[in-house]
Amino acid sequence: MLEETLAEIKPVSREHLGKAWDRINNLVKPVGSLGRLEEMAARIVAIRESDPPRDLKKEIFVFASDHGVALEGVSAFPQEVTGLMVRNFLAGIAGINVIARCAGAHVSIIDVGIKDDVLDAPGLIRRKIKRGSGNILQGPAMTPEETKQAVNVGIEMARQARANGTAMIATGEMGIGNTTPSAALISVLLPANPADVTGRGTGIEDDAYERKIRVIEKAIEKNRPDPKDPLLCLAAIGGLEVAAICGLCLGGAAGKMVVVVDGFISSVGALVAMRLNPHVREYLFFSHKSSETGHAVFFNSEGIRPILDLDLRLGEGTGAALAMQIMENAIRVYTEMATFEEAGIEPVE
Amino acid sequence: MLEETLAEIKPVSREHLGKAWDRINNLVKPVGSLGRLEEMAARIVAIRESDPPRDLKKEIFVFASDHGVALEGVSAFPQEVTGLMVRNFLAGIAGINVIARCAGAHVSIIDVGIKDDVLDAPGLIRRKIKRGSGNILQGPAMTPEETKQAVNVGIEMARQARANGTAMIATGEMGIGNTTPSAALISVLLPANPADVTGRGTGIEDDAYERKIRVIEKAIEKNRPDPKDPLLCLAAIGGLEVAAICGLCLGGAAGKMVVVVDGFISSVGALVAMRLNPHVREYLFFSHKSSETGHAVFFNSEGIRPILDLDLRLGEGTGAALAMQIMENAIRVYTEMATFEEAGIEPVE
Repeated sequence: MLEETLAEIKPVSREHLGKAWDRINNLVKPVGSLGRLEEMAARIVAIRESDPPRDLKKEIFVFASDHGVALEGVSAFPQEVTGLMVRNFLAGIAGINVIARCAGAHVSIIDVGIKDDVLDAPGLIRRKIKRGSGNILQGPAMTPEETKQAVNVGIEMARQARANGTAMIATGEMGIGNTTPSAALISVLLPANPADVTGRGTGIEDDAYERKIRVIEKAIEKNRPDPKDPLLCLAAIGGLEVAAICGLCLGGAAGKMVVVVDGFISSVGALVAMRLNPHVREYLFFSHKSSETGHAVFFNSEGIRPILDLDLRLGEGTGAALAMQIMENAIRVYTEMATFEEAGIEPVE
Repeated sequence: MLEETLAEIKPVSREHLGKAWDRINNLVKPVGSLGRLEEMAARIVAIRESDPPRDLKKEIFVFASDHGVALEGVSAFPQEVTGLMVRNFLAGIAGINVIARCAGAHVSIIDVGIKDDVLDAPGLIRRKIKRGSGNILQGPAMTPEETKQAVNVGIEMARQARANGTAMIATGEMGIGNTTPSAALISVLLPANPADVTGRGTGIEDDAYERKIRVIEKAIEKNRPDPKDPLLCLAAIGGLEVAAICGLCLGGAAGKMVVVVDGFISSVGALVAMRLNPHVREYLFFSHKSSETGHAVFFNSEGIRPILDLDLRLGEGTGAALAMQIMENAIRVYTEMATFEEAGIEPVE
C-alpha cells in the first residue's frame, strides 16, 4: 500500500493554480488585499482541480498510541491518560470534539497502539498494532514491519475518507509521552540539536525537562537512525501514531485531498511524509505554531509559515480544526465574492 | 451622549474573571494548553458577567466616508469607489459579506460621510454628517461639533445593538484615502514618526508613497494636533469613519459588549477611544495584524498581540469577522468541554 501510494503522489495542477489566481485577482477588492486567504484558496482549487463547493466535507483523524519511553519520567501524565482521553473523545466532551463541531468536521478516533484495551467504546476504530511503541532508550520503537503497518493505517483512513466524498482531512493525536520520540525524530530529520527541539510537552518541571533532553540524546545514540532512510528513522525513534499521521499525509496527497496538519507531533509525521516524497508538501496546510519549543525550529528550518499562532499545545487535532475554519472562509471568499465584471465595475488600475 | 458614555465605562469584573479561570483550569486538558483561546474565553465571560450562550449574537458595523485628502494623490483608487463599494456591501457580494456569513454575523453599513449620494440603496443606514472629511493638508478634517456627531453615531449603533440582544460587535470601514488620516493620527497619538507608520494602503507606487508621507507631515504641521486632547486630534487630522469607530468602541465598552477591532484604520479609532478612557482596552479584541506598515508599530507600542496574522489589508471588517470565528471557538470550549470532575477523572497534578 505504501509503495503504491508514494508512486501516486503528483505535483498539484499548475493549470488550475493559474486559473484560480485569475479569478482571485479579479474579485472586488484591491489585488492581494486578502493576503494569505488568497493563497489558501488558490492552493485548494489547484489540489481539488475544480472550484470547491461551499462546505467541503471535513474529517479529523485522531490516532492514539502509547510510548514505552513514558516510563522514563519524561511526561507530566501517566500512560493511563491516553486511554482515558480516548474515552473522552468518544464521549464528545474533549477539546477536539468542541472545536471540530465549530468546524463542521467529523472526528474519527483510531487506536493504533494504546497500552490498555479501551473496552465498551463504540465508535473507536480498532487498528492496534501493539501495546505502545517500544522504549526508545532501550531499542527501536517499532520493527520495520510494524512501522509500515502503522503508516498503512493512515493511508487506509485517507482512502476511506476519499471514498466517502471527504475533501479536507486533518491529523490529530493522543499519546502520553509522544513529544519525546517526536523531538528525537525532528532532531535527526531536520537536523537540529536535541536540546533545541525539546519542549515541556504537557507541562513538565525543570528536572524532568533536563532528563527528557538526555533521554532523547541517548535514544538517538542507541538506535543510530539514518536520516537518509526516513521510514527506518520512524521505526527507530518514532511512534505508532506518528507513523499513522505520516500515512494520512501520504494518502491525502495521493488522493488529491486538502490535508490540514495539527501541531508539533503531527508536523513530525508530516515531515517524514515530505522526506519520503517532496510533492506531499503542496497538499499540506500547517495549521498553527504550537508553543512546544521544537515547532518554531521546524517551521524556520523548512521555510513554512503556519496559519495560526495561538500558543496552543493540546494536540488532538485542535489547531487543525481551528485552521479548517479559516480555510473555509478562504474557499467561500473565492466562490462567493463577485468579480469586478460580475459587479458591473471597471477594475481600477 | 459622549460624556455620559465615557462616565459609564468601568473595568471588567475581576470576580467573573477569577471564576472563569477556575473553570478553564479544570477542563479536561493540561492547564494552559489551549493558550490564547483560554484568555479570550476568560475575558469574554468577565465582560459579559455571565457564562455566554453558544452563538453569541454578532453584528459588524461598516462606517463609510470620504476624505478630501484623497485629492492629493495618496490613494490608488478614486473617491467614487467608496460609494461603489458600499453598493457592493449592500448587494452582499463583497469580502465582508462572505466572511460575515461564515461568522454568522449581521452586517450594517452606515454612511457617515460619503461624498456622493448612494441612491436606491435599501438597508443603508443614513447618518451622513458631511460630504467627506476636509482635506487635512489645508485645514481640519472636521469641526469639533462634527467630530462629536460622528462619535455619537458609533455610540448610537452600539446602544441599538445592545438593545437588540447583540453581545459581540465589530468595527469595519470603507473610505478611499483613509489610511492617510489614520497614519497621521497614530503618529501623533502613539507618538511615532510619520514615515514609520505610513503604508501603501490599497497599493500605491513609490512616488505616491513618498508624497503620502509628506502630506501626513504637512497635515500635522498645519493643524498642530495636541496629543493630550484626543478628540481634537480626531477633529484636526482624523476622519468621520474613524470617529464613528471610536464611538462604537466607547459604546461597546459602556454597554459591556465584546468589541472586535478590525485592521489598521479601526485600530486608530480604537486608540482614540483608549486615550479617552483607558478601561476601554479591556473590552477590545484586536482581530489581526494588517500588512499596512503602521499596524505593527501600533501593536508594539501599545503592547497588544493581535489574534490573527494573515497579511490582510482589505479593511471592511474582514479581519474582525475572521477573529469572531476564533472567539466563538473559545466560548464553546469554555461552555462545552467537560471539567475533570464532570468527566469522572481525577485531575493529575
